[in-house]
Amino acid sequence: MNKKEALKIYRTQNEKIAAYSLLMATAGFDRMTIAPKDGSAYRNRMFSIISGEMYTLRTQKDYIDAILYLADQKIDEVTDRDIALAKKSIENIIKFTKEEMMEYSLAEMTANDKWLEAKLSNDYSIFEPHLKKLIELNKKMANRRNPKADPYDVLLDDFEEGMDRKKYDAFFSLIRKELLPLIKKIDKKKGMIDDSFLYKYYPAEKQALFMKDAMKYLGFSSNWGYMGLTEHPFTSGFSRNDVRVTTSYDEHNITAAIFSLVHECGHAFYEHQVDPKFDKYPFIRNMSSGMHESQSRFFENYLARRRSFFVTLYPKLQSYFPENLGNVSLDDFIRAANVSKCSLVRTEADELTYPIHILIRYELEKDIFKGKISLDELEKAWDDKYMKYLGIKAEKVSDGILQDVHWSESYYGYFPTYALGSAIGAQLFYKMKQDLDVDELLSKGQFKKITDYLKKNVQRYGALYNFEQIVKMATGEDFDPHYYIDYLKEKYCALYKIK
Amino acid sequence: MNKKEALKIYRTQNEKIAAYSLLMATAGFDRMTIAPKDGSAYRNRMFSIISGEMYTLRTQKDYIDAILYLADQKIDEVTDRDIALAKKSIENIIKFTKEEMMEYSLAEMTANDKWLEAKLSNDYSIFEPHLKKLIELNKKMANRRNPKADPYDVLLDDFEEGMDRKKYDAFFSLIRKELLPLIKKIDKKKGMIDDSFLYKYYPAEKQALFMKDAMKYLGFSSNWGYMGLTEHPFTSGFSRNDVRVTTSYDEHNITAAIFSLVHECGHAFYEHQVDPKFDKYPFIRNMSSGMHESQSRFFENYLARRRSFFVTLYPKLQSYFPENLGNVSLDDFIRAANVSKCSLVRTEADELTYPIHILIRYELEKDIFKGKISLDELEKAWDDKYMKYLGIKAEKVSDGILQDVHWSESYYGYFPTYALGSAIGAQLFYKMKQDLDVDELLSKGQFKKITDYLKKNVQRYGALYNFEQIVKMATGEDFDPHYYIDYLKEKYCALYKIK
Repeated sequence: MNKKEALKIYRTQNEKIAAYSLLMATAGFDRMTIAPKDGSAYRNRMFSIISGEMYTLRTQKDYIDAILYLADQKIDEVTDRDIALAKKSIENIIKFTKEEMMEYSLAEMTANDKWLEAKLSNDYSIFEPHLKKLIELNKKMANRRNPKADPYDVLLDDFEEGMDRKKYDAFFSLIRKELLPLIKKIDKKKGMIDDSFLYKYYPAEKQALFMKDAMKYLGFSSNWGYMGLTEHPFTSGFSRNDVRVTTSYDEHNITAAIFSLVHECGHAFYEHQVDPKFDKYPFIRNMSSGMHESQSRFFENYLARRRSFFVTLYPKLQSYFPENLGNVSLDDFIRAANVSKCSLVRTEADELTYPIHILIRYELEKDIFKGKISLDELEKAWDDKYMKYLGIKAEKVSDGILQDVHWSESYYGYFPTYALGSAIGAQLFYKMKQDLDVDELLSKGQFKKITDYLKKNVQRYGALYNFEQIVKMATGEDFDPHYYIDYLKEKYCALYKIK
Repeated sequence: MNKKEALKIYRTQNEKIAAYSLLMATAGFDRMTIAPKDGSAYRNRMFSIISGEMYTLRTQKDYIDAILYLADQKIDEVTDRDIALAKKSIENIIKFTKEEMMEYSLAEMTANDKWLEAKLSNDYSIFEPHLKKLIELNKKMANRRNPKADPYDVLLDDFEEGMDRKKYDAFFSLIRKELLPLIKKIDKKKGMIDDSFLYKYYPAEKQALFMKDAMKYLGFSSNWGYMGLTEHPFTSGFSRNDVRVTTSYDEHNITAAIFSLVHECGHAFYEHQVDPKFDKYPFIRNMSSGMHESQSRFFENYLARRRSFFVTLYPKLQSYFPENLGNVSLDDFIRAANVSKCSLVRTEADELTYPIHILIRYELEKDIFKGKISLDELEKAWDDKYMKYLGIKAEKVSDGILQDVHWSESYYGYFPTYALGSAIGAQLFYKMKQDLDVDELLSKGQFKKITDYLKKNVQRYGALYNFEQIVKMATGEDFDPHYYIDYLKEKYCALYKIK
């Protein structure tokens, strides 16, 4: 084999795999958004056949040989990185049989269906056996991939290259130490800021109209993006010019859908703004979760929770809901939208308590993978953690352990990237404020200058570099979670007049 | 090879093909309903890769060998029919290379994109080169499949087994002879029935609310069905318990979406009500177009245009549009909904002029495939036919030659099945009225008794029998288009008081 032949095999097979991936992304999105439930048994079985076909493609001998051959060559920075990532992916998959991958895929889809059923009927027992099966499969697979490593470390690294329990332990201990005392102080000032008007009746249809305005403001275009509805919002990048986001409306909470949708748009812009030349480098197109969350949480928090973000949007929001917001000033609205309180639902949490929701999931995942908690005790373990850290208890299990879709989709080790991403975002935001007059741009509706900045400094790179390299290039400094801590302390001390 | 081995290969490979088909159906539905346009070049290229994969699966040597072997065996009625249909399908596909199938698939998707663009910008020239390419490809392929037959005959048989120009010529000459004089008579009574209130302003959101009521009345359930929006309504059966229909709203025509959606629901019930045991017989699951249209046109015309169909629904319709319909009686509404007039848009045509729209397309298709009309003259040829038969001319090309999606999807030879299906439906309806008190059931909202009857006598068979056999079994008589002619004459002579 020579370099030219190997590259040809590599690229041809990648394109074929990309075709299957696009179909699976499409079918997955359909499944999550609109597919009728009676078709699910047949659908899931068919999808698992395709996951077997994907396995066959990914483990085709000449493709693997080409990757292993190319991994020892020097070609160019981009190709070398793509091949290094390909090699890592291949080394994982060849440890399994096709039948195992099909079983895994079927277990995942079934668990996901059961999670939704359980959540809608508020009954953890519907989901539990499927969760148990998925976790066992994940443990088994992580162990086979790297018998020497702790299975949870293997999974943490999957979602953010280079991360493990040791690094996350340090990160979360900082969060615990620095933020919990502040959260407790603020909890004592409960009710200081009136946010009751946010929880009046906001009909979904009118919320949807405002979302159109908000998406226009962000520059999210229907030429390259689409918004659907799901129980749990998510983003799926089908290709650079085809990005899907979803949302859901809570008719008694006006900010939930706004911040959630802006969050998903952060993901969407990242998918859309990767350098077009990486279209042919599928592994570089596959960005890490921490970096992805750094962009989504950037949109949601560092931008959308600012007063300046709402200067042009708030009058529109008022016009849809004059009876609820007509007499509420922009300043009062923003203060209310930033109220910090110990609440149950992660996706609706304020910035300050948010990392505690993540901390709880991180600690639970560690214990589950250690075997310290069995799945039938998980409901109680969840409640205990919420009581311990936030002093509250879910009345409905759909607001408790069933609130998140992730575990039903085999996303174990994903949650920590939300907090890590928030921290990365804080550091990027600190630098952005030095480079741009962010508030001026936001108030004037010049959001494109913001997305252009993110494109230039972060998003265009895709996964060409890891998160530490990107942070270094974008800010000139190593990743430092203190930017995050400082941002939160400063913001919330000012808001609650704490010295 | 023995029977058992051959059947195992046949069934395993069929299931794999079914998995790909489900994905392609899903991706196709997504593409037609919501996919962002900037992603289409990439998407179409990826889909054509999958069509190449489908080709590889369908032409796998052991699969073809198994089909050819089994075609000479006697197993049981169902398996034998499935294999006979499989053999026909295989004999067609092996005449082409994988590259040809991929080229065809790409040409089709591109033409479809261009048709939509052309229709929305009212410009035939955008579509013409793509239509030309598709027709050339279809001619070439039909010719290769059967060099001795006329290419258009080959295509007619694809959509309805056993049909050809000779049979359709006889059928359409009956229509021309029997219906055109009546249409001319009625044209002279233009304005006799007031239908102006149907064309007032009917906001799409309110139409959508009524559609929910109508679908509930029909028994179309979101457990096994989903309704989306498209420029040109269609139905796609993903599986027996996953059927998708689409509709579109004209805000200045209240009956357009109603009859169109009921039409699609006719298709949907057919897909849903096929005997579950045929889930494992993919070729029997693939019903013919004429039979499909016999069910959709049955719902749309023989049921939904009756007064009794609206007895419970019309008060609901009035409640959504009190200002437009509050003072219109049910009788006046039904008379208006059945007004016959020479109009431009096929999908909105009344029952009487409808087959003339089909006749026009049939004559044009014959001429196109004969080479008598070139594509750059097609716009004029279309206008000439509408002037000749209906005495009208489209002012916008989107109401003329660009109105239908079919030609952009390689559906040449499909249109005639709409008229054939209407005729089959008329004969089935004549028999149903002898067996059931249709008006009693419709007025009482007992639509399930109707769908059960259709299931028992028609739909459960899938494609186990051809249309002539099904008509014979269901009615006790051979197919006879005079039932259709008589139904139309009787109905419209009564409506327009013609003796």
